Amino acid sequence: MTDHVYKTVELTGSSPEGTDAAVRCAIERASKTIRDIRWFKVTETRGYVEDGKVAHWQVTLKVGFTLED
Amino acid sequence: MTDHVYKTVELTGSSPEGTDAAVRCAIERASKTIRDIRWFKVTETRGYVEDGKVAHWQVTLKVGFTLED
Amino acid sequence: MTDHVYKTVELTGSSPEGTDAAVRCAIERASKTIRDIRWFKVTETRGYVEDGKVAHWQVTLKVGFTLED
Amino acid sequence: MTDHVYKTVELTGSSPEGTDAAVRCAIERASKTIRDIRWFKVTETRGYVEDGKVAHWQVTLKVGFTLED
Amino acid sequence: MTDHVYKTVELTGSSPEGTDAAVRCAIERASKTIRDIRWFKVTETRGYVEDGKVAHWQVTLKVGFTLED
Amino acid sequence: MTDHVYKTVELTGSSPEGTDAAVRCAIERASKTIRDIRWFKVTETRGYVEDGKVAHWQVTLKVGFTLED
Amino acid sequence: MTDHVYKTVELTGSSPEGTDAAVRCAIERASKTIRDIRWFKVTETRGYVEDGKVAHWQVTLKVGFTLED
Amino acid sequence: MTDHVYKTVELTGSSPEGTDAAVRCAIERASKTIRDIRWFKVTETRGYVEDGKVAHWQVTLKVGFTLED
Amino acid sequence: MTDHVYKTVELTGSSPEGTDAAVRCAIERASKTIRDIRWFKVTETRGYVEDGKVAHWQVTLKVGFTLED
Amino acid sequence: MTDHVYKTVELTGSSPEGTDAAVRCAIERASKTIRDIRWFKVTETRGYVEDGKVAHWQVTLKVGFTLED
Amino acid sequence: MTDHVYKTVELTGSSPEGTDAAVRCAIERASKTIRDIRWFKVTETRGYVEDGKVAHWQVTLKVGFTLED
Amino acid sequence: MTDHVYKTVELTGSSPEGTDAAVRCAIERASKTIRDIRWFKVTETRGYVEDGKVAHWQVTLKVGFTLED
Repeated sequence: MTDHVYKTVELTGSSPEGTDAAVRCAIERASKTIRDIRWFKVTETRGYVEDGKVAHWQVTLKVGFTLED
Repeated sequence: MTDHVYKTVELTGSSPEGTDAAVRCAIERASKTIRDIRWFKVTETRGYVEDGKVAHWQVTLKVGFTLED
Repeated sequence: MTDHVYKTVELTGSSPEGTDAAVRCAIERASKTIRDIRWFKVTETRGYVEDGKVAHWQVTLKVGFTLED
Repeated sequence: MTDHVYKTVELTGSSPEGTDAAVRCAIERASKTIRDIRWFKVTETRGYVEDGKVAHWQVTLKVGFTLED
Repeated sequence: MTDHVYKTVELTGSSPEGTDAAVRCAIERASKTIRDIRWFKVTETRGYVEDGKVAHWQVTLKVGFTLED
Repeated sequence: MTDHVYKTVELTGSSPEGTDAAVRCAIERASKTIRDIRWFKVTETRGYVEDGKVAHWQVTLKVGFTLED
Repeated sequence: MTDHVYKTVELTGSSPEGTDAAVRCAIERASKTIRDIRWFKVTETRGYVEDGKVAHWQVTLKVGFTLED
Repeated sequence: MTDHVYKTVELTGSSPEGTDAAVRCAIERASKTIRDIRWFKVTETRGYVEDGKVAHWQVTLKVGFTLED
Repeated sequence: MTDHVYKTVELTGSSPEGTDAAVRCAIERASKTIRDIRWFKVTETRGYVEDGKVAHWQVTLKVGFTLED
Repeated sequence: MTDHVYKTVELTGSSPEGTDAAVRCAIERASKTIRDIRWFKVTETRGYVEDGKVAHWQVTLKVGFTLED
Repeated sequence: MTDHVYKTVELTGSSPEGTDAAVRCAIERASKTIRDIRWFKVTETRGYVEDGKVAHWQVTLKVGFTLED
Repeated sequence: MTDHVYKTVELTGSSPEGTDAAVRCAIERASKTIRDIRWFKVTETRGYVEDGKVAHWQVTLKVGFTLED
């Protein structure tokens, strides 16, 4: 096995639907500019409330990708 | 922009359906007595098991609201 | 009420569907060998990405059960 | 099982006797104004010293109770 | 020394001036409704940015006060 | 000194008497099935309340023992 | 409300004046290359000492900005 | 009120009796060489086991005292 | 990809040589009784000192393995 | 570059003026007895309240200095 | 001394040799594209196991560098 | 077994060779002035980079020793 190096960036996705949708939103949006995303880890789950109901969900992720040579 | 002050309370919602439903339960129940809830942050996700299956989900939130003058 | 002792084990469940499904997977698989599971607590939520989309979700749990005499 | 919501408050009890007495002090004092306290969790244990001896113990608790409809 | 019980609440103050002013804002606003505030502890310092400059500072505090009998 | 390997398990003991009794309960119960327990570390102290009084104490421990060859 | 994605970077600002000045330094310097900075969160406050006095203050921030499409 | 400076040291006390006795042991022993101890905070509670019973308790404290001019 | 479940155990390895050797010791010893160990994560690095020199190193690991059906 | 060893001590400074003044107070007071202080790191910011206003600020620091041979 | 700003990125290096080699791998690979790396801090040490032996080590670092004007 | 009291100090050792050498450096240097060092625990591992290579490693330890009567 050869040596390799990963980089991690922190992203926050948001969605009116729920937590899993907010994660998918962040990953799919980030994949437009970052090639080779491999994994994510949830670091914070928040949400905003309007008129007594959850209006949108906001999930912060660490996202890891391979550094290309 | 004027100065303002928020207060945070800690609530735990519970639901047999899943984690997002437990959050909605806590927010909607709390909105009956707290006006002006603005945001929440998930601090713990637990659940209880009966007969080898998840019987209900329990999510603890910090919930922030504006202090009215 | 009598004295009793619980034991906790750490498990990671995985599912292509979402976070709640990954938890259910871990609990149902573990219930085949551990009797008397009572509760779980989520300690980490991760996922793996293929072709710019979430391919599977991976949730780590602390799972508590009663020690039988 | 029906959905329900818990609220958590943070209290600090104090006693010259020891840590368990400081917890009991906080719980019994709080029960005068909060109905339906269900559980507590210790979050900090401190104490004050006078003339080289522990003069009183101070224990901080998160205390959970059911929100009544 | 007699036994006594403290309660802690979490507040967020905000100010365009700086971090110390945001703390003073929260304490002075809370003192209008809570008697006998004794201490605070800073738990988070954030801020919001407009046009490349800090527009206001936001400091979250745990605030402790004596429970009156 | 020779190399050796320890294993840690997480246990929760409970007692109506107090925190030290809950620890002793967990250690003595676990010693029936685990030989060579060497040490423990307290990771959480909780309790349950009935009728405004502490009904039982619950202490979670990491318990370490030597792996036998 | 539409879905959107934020990115977070970690910066350290430094100033001989004090902590608030070190934060302003980091935000104003970063705004030269990052458009749409929205918020920051302080994660560490340090300083360096020369001849028994604080010579400069060093504040580390997480800084969040909107990812442009 | 005048400005003053406190110093904190970390100590571990031990006792065969229980956790409170281990704290008292550390405070009383330290008071022989440190004047003006004011407070302590428990940071770790451990113990050692012999023949399936708790043989001694070990409590680690941060201990604060006034620096004398 | 199929669903699967991992279990994590906590082990402490020890060696007079250094930290990497203490990790290898724990993994190789544990592999005698646990099949399918996949990964480890270091959670604590300690050591014991005799006559003013490091006598042995002690590294605690979380070790993950696949639960076999 | 030669090998060297630093020692860290924990100090708490206090001031009626604000957080930066409390840090300077601790550093300048400590420099009377500790030579070669190099850096500090803020670990806690608290304050005491009298008559609904911040009466003094209290900042706890880790302070590092070179051990002289 | 003039004001300056640092940026931090998170990298993971990997090596079959050991933990120090995994750190060197990450630093040397990152130096090809980031000028002026000044320091690193280890945030996680993991490894992967094959056939009961450590196959490669994986160390995650925060890496700080000066922002050039 | 008799009661005894330990004290902990925090030290940082540094070495151009690697992490284990930085620990040995701190322990051997501290043993010149502190008798009866018993154990250490690593709390932080950092390093400094020059010309794209690790120039020296810096490891912070908590070091425990017996208080002599």
